[in-house]
Amino acid sequence: MNAIGVDIGGTKIAAAVVTPEGEILSEVRYPTQAVPQNRLIETIAKAITEVKDGFDVGGVCVAVPGLILASENKVIFAPNLHEIENIRLDEEIGRRTNLMVKVENDANAAAWGEFRFGAGKGLEHMIFITLGTGVGGGIITHGILLRGAQGAGGELGHVTIDPTGPRCGCGNFGCLEALASGTAIQRRARELANERPSSALGQLAIERQILGEDVTRLAREGDEVSASVLKETGRWLGIGLAGFVNTFNPEVIAIGGGASRAGELILEDARREVQLRARSPSRDLVEIKEATLGPESGVLGAAALASG
Amino acid sequence: MNAIGVDIGGTKIAAAVVTPEGEILSEVRYPTQAVPQNRLIETIAKAITEVKDGFDVGGVCVAVPGLILASENKVIFAPNLHEIENIRLDEEIGRRTNLMVKVENDANAAAWGEFRFGAGKGLEHMIFITLGTGVGGGIITHGILLRGAQGAGGELGHVTIDPTGPRCGCGNFGCLEALASGTAIQRRARELANERPSSALGQLAIERQILGEDVTRLAREGDEVSASVLKETGRWLGIGLAGFVNTFNPEVIAIGGGASRAGELILEDARREVQLRARSPSRDLVEIKEATLGPESGVLGAAALASG
Repeated sequence: MNAIGVDIGGTKIAAAVVTPEGEILSEVRYPTQAVPQNRLIETIAKAITEVKDGFDVGGVCVAVPGLILASENKVIFAPNLHEIENIRLDEEIGRRTNLMVKVENDANAAAWGEFRFGAGKGLEHMIFITLGTGVGGGIITHGILLRGAQGAGGELGHVTIDPTGPRCGCGNFGCLEALASGTAIQRRARELANERPSSALGQLAIERQILGEDVTRLAREGDEVSASVLKETGRWLGIGLAGFVNTFNPEVIAIGGGASRAGELILEDARREVQLRARSPSRDLVEIKEATLGPESGVLGAAALASG
Repeated sequence: MNAIGVDIGGTKIAAAVVTPEGEILSEVRYPTQAVPQNRLIETIAKAITEVKDGFDVGGVCVAVPGLILASENKVIFAPNLHEIENIRLDEEIGRRTNLMVKVENDANAAAWGEFRFGAGKGLEHMIFITLGTGVGGGIITHGILLRGAQGAGGELGHVTIDPTGPRCGCGNFGCLEALASGTAIQRRARELANERPSSALGQLAIERQILGEDVTRLAREGDEVSASVLKETGRWLGIGLAGFVNTFNPEVIAIGGGASRAGELILEDARREVQLRARSPSRDLVEIKEATLGPESGVLGAAALASG
């Protein structure tokens, strides 16, 4: 039966009616900044009601960026969404929409989307990594979404890969997120732009602040300094992925999120590091590739979890 | 129903008849060095036949130190057991014993033993780490033994925690095993003994080669240099465990193997590092403690897997 997936992101709320096969029949989006903090729940309910119009749906799942207790459909902590902390979102939204509502962590929902309809379709063992401002993760092992005892599992961005490495937003040092996120790319680009002011990257840095997409663009245009920023990011990503390969023996690691648009400029070095550091036969099996669903992975995965 | 668990170790082959509640009714052991390489399968079959005498059993599971394809009961690669590479151990032993035979990796079997009857009894999410010559791991998540796509998952000893760290037996650098195994303790003890020749550790090193148990004994007797060897081992162990806590959100991490006999001399610093590096609420939930079954975890877990 059709279901509604809702994805609460940093810039938008998206709600979609999705078929069991992963086809989006209808979608609405609200930019998050247009939603007053204290009206978030109302807006989510409104988006659901709007997108549902004319469709039969079996249920809803809301993907939230934060700590979720999935077994109780409870949002424990969502650092960017003050209104929906420590509440039963299923009750709040169910009451307003007359639908069965589930709640899931956003990275887990996106991972489930890629697993059911994207890079992991037809498989049983997939790791999903989002390279954005931070690094998020989702784990499917033996066909199960790995949530852990409190729904706090899958925090692959906060695995230490260099104990004396740079400080991470979480307070720790040398997390995968501190070394392979979009933020890490920007930091590394600033440093190298300073060291190499005559490079294309260095020249741009004199004009304005460098964004992650600048680094990818300049690397594609042949700037070696920009390329080396992405290669180093790939190496650090690969150190993390090698650990996941040895831990999970997955069939696929799918890389999504904004920074994954650098594609092979990052992934080639990540794969090389995995070949150096992971063990056979796991390293021979695993395919490390870009996620295929783009930003729709969240609504698609959430919809699939609504009915699952 | 009762089942037989067999554990093939570096120093012994143990076979036991075990009740569904984890009680050992009968056990036989053969020292491995007394078994000619080409007679290993015969000896396993003989041990099973002997231990079975007078008991009704539903099946057998053989725990093997190596890479196992559990779904096919096949040993792919067992570095210390040349005779049983690339063979269907279930057929070879089933034919000789007229019993249903399964095959499992030894660390997975020990983890399953601790999960069913020991440190993880009654729980759903447990990580098991053995600190021996190497570092082995077993993962139970959502009540499932995590084997991965080829049965090669759970290789927690070969997760990189320091990319430029010491070389590991696997060829990689800075694996958990290279930093927190019994071998790492011996290496660190040798180094510190050289630097501090007047310490109790330094004095012993002049007389003979230091063993892991010497370090624990001297630390218990008040030698600060020996204590610092174990504390540093604990810190490295904790860096690895913090990643597992963020990844799996487990209820318990159980530490077994020979080096775990150092107990709190290692675990206290490991726990402190986990508190520094892992995230809430996972770090608040997890209990890091010694495994409770000792060397019997292998036969107990194998027996439980035989009937499961």
